[in-house]
Order: sequence, then structure tokens, then C-alpha cells
Amino acid sequence: MDSFIFQNATKIVFGKGVETQVGSLTAEKSHKILLHWGRGSAKRSGLLDRVKSSLSASGVTWIELGGVQPNPRLSLVQEGIRLCREQQLDFVLAVGGGSVIDSAKAIAAGVPYAGNVWDFYLGKAVPSRALPVGCVLTIPAAGSESSGSSVITNEDGLLKKGLTCNDHLRPVFSLLNPELTVTLSVKDTAIGAADIMSHLMERYFTNSMHVDFSDRLLEATMQSVIHNLPRVLNDPQNEEARAELMWTGTLAHNDLFGMGRVGDWASHDIEHELSAQYDLPHGAGLAIVFPAWMKYVYRHEISRFAQWAHRVWGVEADFRTPELTALEGIHRLEKFYQQAGLPTRLSEVAVNDKYFDVMAAKATSSDQKTVGQFVKLDQKAIQAIFKLAQ
Amino acid sequence: MDSFIFQNATKIVFGKGVETQVGSLTAEKSHKILLHWGRGSAKRSGLLDRVKSSLSASGVTWIELGGVQPNPRLSLVQEGIRLCREQQLDFVLAVGGGSVIDSAKAIAAGVPYAGNVWDFYLGKAVPSRALPVGCVLTIPAAGSESSGSSVITNEDGLLKKGLTCNDHLRPVFSLLNPELTVTLSVKDTAIGAADIMSHLMERYFTNSMHVDFSDRLLEATMQSVIHNLPRVLNDPQNEEARAELMWTGTLAHNDLFGMGRVGDWASHDIEHELSAQYDLPHGAGLAIVFPAWMKYVYRHEISRFAQWAHRVWGVEADFRTPELTALEGIHRLEKFYQQAGLPTRLSEVAVNDKYFDVMAAKATSSDQKTVGQFVKLDQKAIQAIFKLAQ
Repeated sequence: MDSFIFQNATKIVFGKGVETQVGSLTAEKSHKILLHWGRGSAKRSGLLDRVKSSLSASGVTWIELGGVQPNPRLSLVQEGIRLCREQQLDFVLAVGGGSVIDSAKAIAAGVPYAGNVWDFYLGKAVPSRALPVGCVLTIPAAGSESSGSSVITNEDGLLKKGLTCNDHLRPVFSLLNPELTVTLSVKDTAIGAADIMSHLMERYFTNSMHVDFSDRLLEATMQSVIHNLPRVLNDPQNEEARAELMWTGTLAHNDLFGMGRVGDWASHDIEHELSAQYDLPHGAGLAIVFPAWMKYVYRHEISRFAQWAHRVWGVEADFRTPELTALEGIHRLEKFYQQAGLPTRLSEVAVNDKYFDVMAAKATSSDQKTVGQFVKLDQKAIQAIFKLAQ
Repeated sequence: MDSFIFQNATKIVFGKGVETQVGSLTAEKSHKILLHWGRGSAKRSGLLDRVKSSLSASGVTWIELGGVQPNPRLSLVQEGIRLCREQQLDFVLAVGGGSVIDSAKAIAAGVPYAGNVWDFYLGKAVPSRALPVGCVLTIPAAGSESSGSSVITNEDGLLKKGLTCNDHLRPVFSLLNPELTVTLSVKDTAIGAADIMSHLMERYFTNSMHVDFSDRLLEATMQSVIHNLPRVLNDPQNEEARAELMWTGTLAHNDLFGMGRVGDWASHDIEHELSAQYDLPHGAGLAIVFPAWMKYVYRHEISRFAQWAHRVWGVEADFRTPELTALEGIHRLEKFYQQAGLPTRLSEVAVNDKYFDVMAAKATSSDQKTVGQFVKLDQKAIQAIFKLAQ
């Protein structure tokens, strides 16, 4: 197990109707906030009105900024920063899913920073402070509600970049009401689950040794997603299974289960290029990229893939030909995604080989020239993975 | 899943040599502290000297109070409170295991309180603030290093009582160096592991419905203890297995895995009477009480015990006679403890039936007149459990 530091002070309030607590929790921090939301589903469902009532009742005033899209855009972040500065808002409340929360974090980091907030995403600067962020979560997927991470797309050049700053970007509170997720479409639920699975698998496939305990925690969480997702898809009104999915989404990405081990994150890096280029939903892109990544790298440590197949997917342990056990695990993952209605091939989302080289080049444009840790992948390797995903 | 609120801001610093960071972390909070320790092993091992060097290097001064015993005593807590007030110390640093940390928390809660700190343990008052506490952990067991709990024994009447106050008693930081646990005796290691297992099982046996995810997290953690404890006992120098045990101990009792479900805690309540009466090590008492408790209550929900036996202990799932699966699980737990050199019968620790009635009466002296949640146990039931443990 590697050395680590873990601290996560996000207050999680989980249960039916918890969004009514948003006013009192916000008022502990600020009385003049930016209220940030997405494409209108929170407005249509009446959630936004309930949030506003709660804020008003606690004497909190707000300026609204809606319109966050999936793959949230830098231009809206800049608009949010401008609003906060002009109106002297010192708190950002995100009502929505991971995109809204990521956008809120970018605004929060950008307000007290003299330079361009995009510097943080390019790794040119590190946030030394940020406005506090609170969340009312509507989509279990990104885990942004208690993570220190944010991913933003710069429309100028189709660049999608991530920032992690656990010291300043973890939300101060997140309200998780699983009832709010009941109206989430079957498709969006599955896309979110693929994101959750990916956060677990990125951490699972590691070269770190002696990680028995965190292996098991990650396996347990994957098993719970595998157990509960079909229940939700078969019965979208199943609030109990919805609640389980929501909680797995938070713990899959608050980083606790990744402590003491080095994650991989190549699939995320590759997918970021895909969704920057084609504006795919992140989870759908991951459902395509991850199995292909596995097929490309599994020989690096067949025993880890065989353990995963056996423990997570219940594949019989074939110790004479562990490669077969490993491959069956990858096959089960693909089948699981397919049965959930997710794409597992680029052809299903109308992506051909036109930009394989461009995307591979952009993914490896950093100083390292590679992505991933389990196996370091260069441009050529990424192109090979795109081909496996065709 | 039940509604819940979870917040845990304890900063965990894990790895070799992390105790050298104690000075800088403490200095962020205070420069005049109470340095609290146990029966001298930290002194003999040189740990205390290293801690002092680190404190000095960061300009932190201290008053020392050693002598904390297992089942930490109220009298020493009172002495600590007096010292902090007299010397105007505003931070308590615990160097040791759960007893030292629990004692430090009691002091921290008592200093700003005008009444008797024992009020908190009797439930007559609730801490509204406390001095910050930091920890250098030496024994993986109690999980006190990131919990909001403290258990103290009042010598006057042999009363052992617990206090939980997550808002004010979670340590601000805890330094976990698994190297420090290598010198822990095989016996004390096993006793600690029984404590860890108990924290997981108290949460596992619940009447809360739809707790698939937390079931799996608790099972994963138990499996890791079961996997790693024999490795440590066979090779006490195995730092990697020591590290895994240490981290399981923290996560078993920081309450994250108990969210959304009601725990039982009858075994802890019963054991508290046992160790208050006989001054047994807490983990040893639990190794005796827990299997007896299981034999008494398992019929309340055989399916939960069968699931536990199958998933945690690998017992074959016998769906025609699930009771046999359940019973085999309890048998495996007993065998696991026995193989670790732990007592599983009262006779092994020279406890006869003399005080069964007294202890059962004391355990049920609260307003509820029962202990436990999975099955509510009255005096008679507790006596029956003591008999099963003979």
C-alpha cells in the first residue's frame, strides 16, 4: 500500500426531501449566492422552485445562471465568474448533475484568481482558494458532489480538461435525495452507471502492490452497481435501488477507495478527447472506451483481470488458463453495458476513424506524452484502442 | 436505506514515518498542548521522543500526561481536564491506541464544560464544543482515530459508558504509520482485530431494508480482516498485512459503512459490563460475547446470517436449510478467533456466573431497559447470552 493523505469534509445529507435543507445549510456560509443549474429539468420538475423557497426562507438571495450543458463549457464558467465578481456573490450553489457541479467548481476557483481560470485546467496554476460550493444532486454519476475534481470543455479548440484540487474544490455540503432521480430516463441512468463503474475500474487497475482491502472495497461497489442498475432499468420507480445507485456514485469518486494505490485514468483521458470532439455523453463514451482499453492492456497483468472477473462478475476461476477468466470478465462488462442499452462500439455513436489520429495526438499532448499508469499508452497505443472500439 | 447525514473531516495521513509530521500539523492548531499517552510502550519504543522532537521543531510546547490504561479511567480524564485548564492548553495530542484517544476526547470535551464530564457519558448533557484532538495511532483496533466516539470507565461503581458526538469529537488529524504496529504482540494484534470485526458486525446485523451497498462494503472489510490477520500472526514483521489491518480498523468505525442503516451494538453494551467488571481487554471480551450473541439472535433473520456466512466466510449456500449455512458462519467466526489465540468462552478468562445478573442489570439500567436494535435484549436475554458464552 502506498502512503496517502485523505481528508474529505463534505457534509452529505441523504434521504427523501433533503433539498428543503438547502437554505439553512447555505445560510451558514453566505446570504448572497450564485444559483447555478443546467438545461431546465430542475426547473420543469419544480425542484428549482423548492430550492428557491428554501433559500428565501433562510434569508439567502441569489443571482441565477442556468444553461450548463453536458461537457460543461468554459464560456459559461467565465460568465459565472463575471457575475460573482460584479454582484459580489461569495458562494456557488449547484442544482443538477456532475456537469453543473463541475461548472460551479470552476466558477468558484476562478472568482478569487487574477488570471484566466483555464490556467488551472492546463496545469499552469493551482487554486490557492475558492468560493465554497454546495450541491443539490440530481444525477448519480460523476461523484463530483464530494470530489475535488472538475472537468471543463474549452470550445476554443475542443479541449476538455480536468482539474483536481482536494484542498479547495470539495463541496461544503451535498444534498442527495434519491427521489429526485426517479424521473431520470433509463438511458441517462445507464450512462451515469457507466461513469460510476469507470471511476471504480480506473482505481482498480493498478500496479500498486498489497492493496487487498481497497481491491475488495472497489469490488463491493462494482457489485452493487451491477446488482442495482438492472433493477432500476426494469423498474425506474424503484426508489430503493435508485438510492443504492446514488450512494455508490458518491463513494466511487470521493477517492477514499483509491487511497494507497495509483489509479490508471487512461480511459478517462481517451474518452475526454472523444466527447470533446463529438460531444458524446461522458458515460456513453466510457462504455465504449473501457472494454477496448481492457482488451489492449489485460496481458500486462492477467491475474488482476482474472481476480476482477472472478470476484466482481462471478466468472469461474480457471487457474490453468487465467487468460480465459480475464477475457470472460471483459466480455461480461460489455454484455452488462449492452443489456443496459449502452453503446460499446464507436460505430453505434456514428464515430468513424476520421479523427483517431487527432484525438490520440491531443490526448498525449501533455509533457508526459502518454496517458495511463497501469500501462502507459502513447499515441499509437491510443489509436489501437480506438480501432478495438470500432 | 434510511436517511442519514455524514461528515468526517479528520485528516488521515497514512504511511511510513508519518509521525514526523505531527509538529507541523499540531502547530496549525495550537502551540501549547496536552501530550497524552499510555502505559509506556510509546516511550520505550522511542516513538514519544520522535513526537517530541517534531513538536519542538514546530515550536509546540507541551505538558505530559501518561498512564492511560486499557478501559481508560475517569480519574485520569479529570486530571487531564485540570491540567488543561490550569496550564491553558487548548489541544490534546493522543499518542497510543483507542484507550489513549478515547481518554483524550473525554478531556477535550470536559475542558470547556462547566459541569462534570461524566454527564456526557450518562447522557445528561451533550458536548457543544471541545478542544481539538490529534492522534498518533499505535494500535489498529478501536477506530477512535477518526470516529466521534469515546468510551470511559468510571471506577466509582465500575461503570463503563460510551459517548458519541460526531460534531465535536472526531480528531482533526490522525497519523497512521503501520511500521509502528510491527512491535505489537500477536495477542494484542488479535484482540484489536476482534474489535475491528465487531465494529463491522454491529453494523451488519440490522433490520434496515435495502442496504445492499453497505452490506457489501461491510462484507469486503470483514473479508480483508479475515485475509490479513492470519498473515500478521504468522509473520508479525509483515508490514504490508499490518498496513491493511490498520486501514480496515479506521474505516470499520468512522461510520461511513453504517450510513443508511441502524446498527445493533448489543454485543458492545454487554461487553462493556464484562470489561468494567473484570477489566478484560475490550476485543477479547467481544470475541467471547459476539458468537454467543449470534447463537441467541440468529433466528430473528436467518437469511441475513446465511448471507453473511456465504459471502464473508465462503460457506456454501444451502437454500433448503439456510439455518445450517447461518450456523456454519457462526462456527467459522469462532474458529477464526480460536485460531488467532483469542478466547471465545468466559471460562477461558476466569469469569464464572457470579455476576451474570449484576452485569445484565447494569447493561439494561438505561431508560430503554434493553440493549440492541436487531433484537432488543432485556436482562433475561443478556443472562442467556452469558450462559451461551460459558
